[in-house]
Amino acid sequence: MKERMRIAITMGDPAGVGPEIIVKALSHVEIYQKCIPIVVGDYAALADALRFCNLPIELHQVSEVAEAKGEFGNIDFISLNKIQPGGWEYKKNSAICGEASFQYVVYGIRLAMEGKVQAVVTAPINKESIHMAGYHYSGHTEIFAEYTGTKDFAMLLASRTLHVIHVSTHCSLREACDRVKKDRVLKVIRLAQEGMRQLGYQNPKIGVAGLNPHCSENGLFGTEEEQEIVPAIEEARKEGIDVAGPESPDTVFVKCQAGQYDIIVAMYHDQGHIPLKLSGFKYDLQKNKYDSVSGINCTIGLPIVRTSVDHGTAFGKAGEGRANEESMMDAIFAGVEMARYRGLEK
Amino acid sequence: MKERMRIAITMGDPAGVGPEIIVKALSHVEIYQKCIPIVVGDYAALADALRFCNLPIELHQVSEVAEAKGEFGNIDFISLNKIQPGGWEYKKNSAICGEASFQYVVYGIRLAMEGKVQAVVTAPINKESIHMAGYHYSGHTEIFAEYTGTKDFAMLLASRTLHVIHVSTHCSLREACDRVKKDRVLKVIRLAQEGMRQLGYQNPKIGVAGLNPHCSENGLFGTEEEQEIVPAIEEARKEGIDVAGPESPDTVFVKCQAGQYDIIVAMYHDQGHIPLKLSGFKYDLQKNKYDSVSGINCTIGLPIVRTSVDHGTAFGKAGEGRANEESMMDAIFAGVEMARYRGLEK
Repeated sequence: MKERMRIAITMGDPAGVGPEIIVKALSHVEIYQKCIPIVVGDYAALADALRFCNLPIELHQVSEVAEAKGEFGNIDFISLNKIQPGGWEYKKNSAICGEASFQYVVYGIRLAMEGKVQAVVTAPINKESIHMAGYHYSGHTEIFAEYTGTKDFAMLLASRTLHVIHVSTHCSLREACDRVKKDRVLKVIRLAQEGMRQLGYQNPKIGVAGLNPHCSENGLFGTEEEQEIVPAIEEARKEGIDVAGPESPDTVFVKCQAGQYDIIVAMYHDQGHIPLKLSGFKYDLQKNKYDSVSGINCTIGLPIVRTSVDHGTAFGKAGEGRANEESMMDAIFAGVEMARYRGLEK
Repeated sequence: MKERMRIAITMGDPAGVGPEIIVKALSHVEIYQKCIPIVVGDYAALADALRFCNLPIELHQVSEVAEAKGEFGNIDFISLNKIQPGGWEYKKNSAICGEASFQYVVYGIRLAMEGKVQAVVTAPINKESIHMAGYHYSGHTEIFAEYTGTKDFAMLLASRTLHVIHVSTHCSLREACDRVKKDRVLKVIRLAQEGMRQLGYQNPKIGVAGLNPHCSENGLFGTEEEQEIVPAIEEARKEGIDVAGPESPDTVFVKCQAGQYDIIVAMYHDQGHIPLKLSGFKYDLQKNKYDSVSGINCTIGLPIVRTSVDHGTAFGKAGEGRANEESMMDAIFAGVEMARYRGLEK
């Protein structure tokens, strides 16, 4: 039997739900059947999450990945000593938590670049807090791109019924319109194919959404379909990619869910995130929590494997034990799958 | 027992699925239990739809609404003689069909303005065809606004699990960004309350979506939330409206579906249409048709009641008998309900 893959899990912002969803995910034995998870974070936050979740699990500190035992019931972790017991507050932005969460990510990236882990799975960071700490990134994706020296990358989201990859993500909607350019659309179509292959789809069927309502109805409102999107699709087809569109943004996701496409190329953040979350998230109003949070997030185009939960720090319920670990588990499983596709097994 | 309400159903573009979904809807006896439907269209198209759908129903031509019998098994219709048998082609744009479908709508509006019908339900028109006929409207909504002299109106969509009303609809995404102005957002919040009351919600809970990803994260990408949307919400609250937001566009629809809100104010066409169609439309890939099309569309703010199906002419399957009448039935029922709220019963 092959050795299990080693997966770094970065702890995310200590003031958010990151530590909680990690310890909850690692209380499922299935995770340990698939991989050896190593948390990159801080003792104080993990210990507190175990306390308020009331989980009978031990923490096992290691100073390097090779020391991890990967035994269910013991969470292997590397402590960066960025926060101390009582030294941070749940639900609050702070430079301390921003600094800590940024350093966990950088450390995780280094482990993967050095080949010590086969994938990095990230818990949510808080943009305001990392800005307070002086790091001006709009999200994990951009940190990974910079620290791995990657120019062409894209955010791929997956629920159990839908896959979406984005031409742009964290920018204003006005700027997102400006970013719909032939070159970028073509690159994202290629990344869609690459990403889906890593997720186990040999010949993915790719659908491309338009930017404007009804794809601008032949130019009645908007020109981007004709000038930027159609030329990109034509070029991708010449490369042998199975791609169609542009399709009206308001029906293409229905068609994807029905199986006409395996993945949709979305032109901006919410065009992809709205259907993904509607298909993957289920909110229980009585319990005031998400019943099911099955979306995951991968960065495609990097030299390393990176997956993530598809939700934020959820400050509103941090420190209370109400967070749902499903998306974290899915992200870990996807990380293992993508690493396996890349032949990273030992 | 009160007399049933009279509902005008405009036939839509003869080259599309309009005639088909009408005759299919009117083959359900429940429609006749609720109202007296009168189709405004043309004999040739209705007769052909009955033929290819193989429906054992008679056509009963009337010259005015008062002659309609409202008997199940007979479709009362007013023929405008705009198309002749063999004089149009399914699935094709033409000035003839554009002219015809435009005139059906204008006729329906006049019937309602004169109080001869209590609501107008519209089957889909094709924008290119009405443009070919020389009418430069971006959709039904704008025709209704002009012919009823209405300045402040909005498009409300409803599926069985979601209600959405739109700040803008048929314009480019760039222009949609420009149209997010405090005054307009405030008016649409008020229209949301009015529309939901007409649909039977006494005190609707209204959620307002942001424009930018994550509501711009406190101004990191975009200014519209702070400058336009928040002031509109505050003013609406002062008026006693139960309204909250702006909420992140990618999760607000999940919360609406869970019951936290009854209706969402969407900032642009696809922000509202993507979740609505995902929640209401179900596409069957094997059968190559929509299994379930439960979305409806109402124009709020008009002096008359107008509802519509929430799909287009679907040229791809026009004339084949594969179209689904569910949305048409829902639109008729909603028209009856809204007319009743307005006290239009005789």
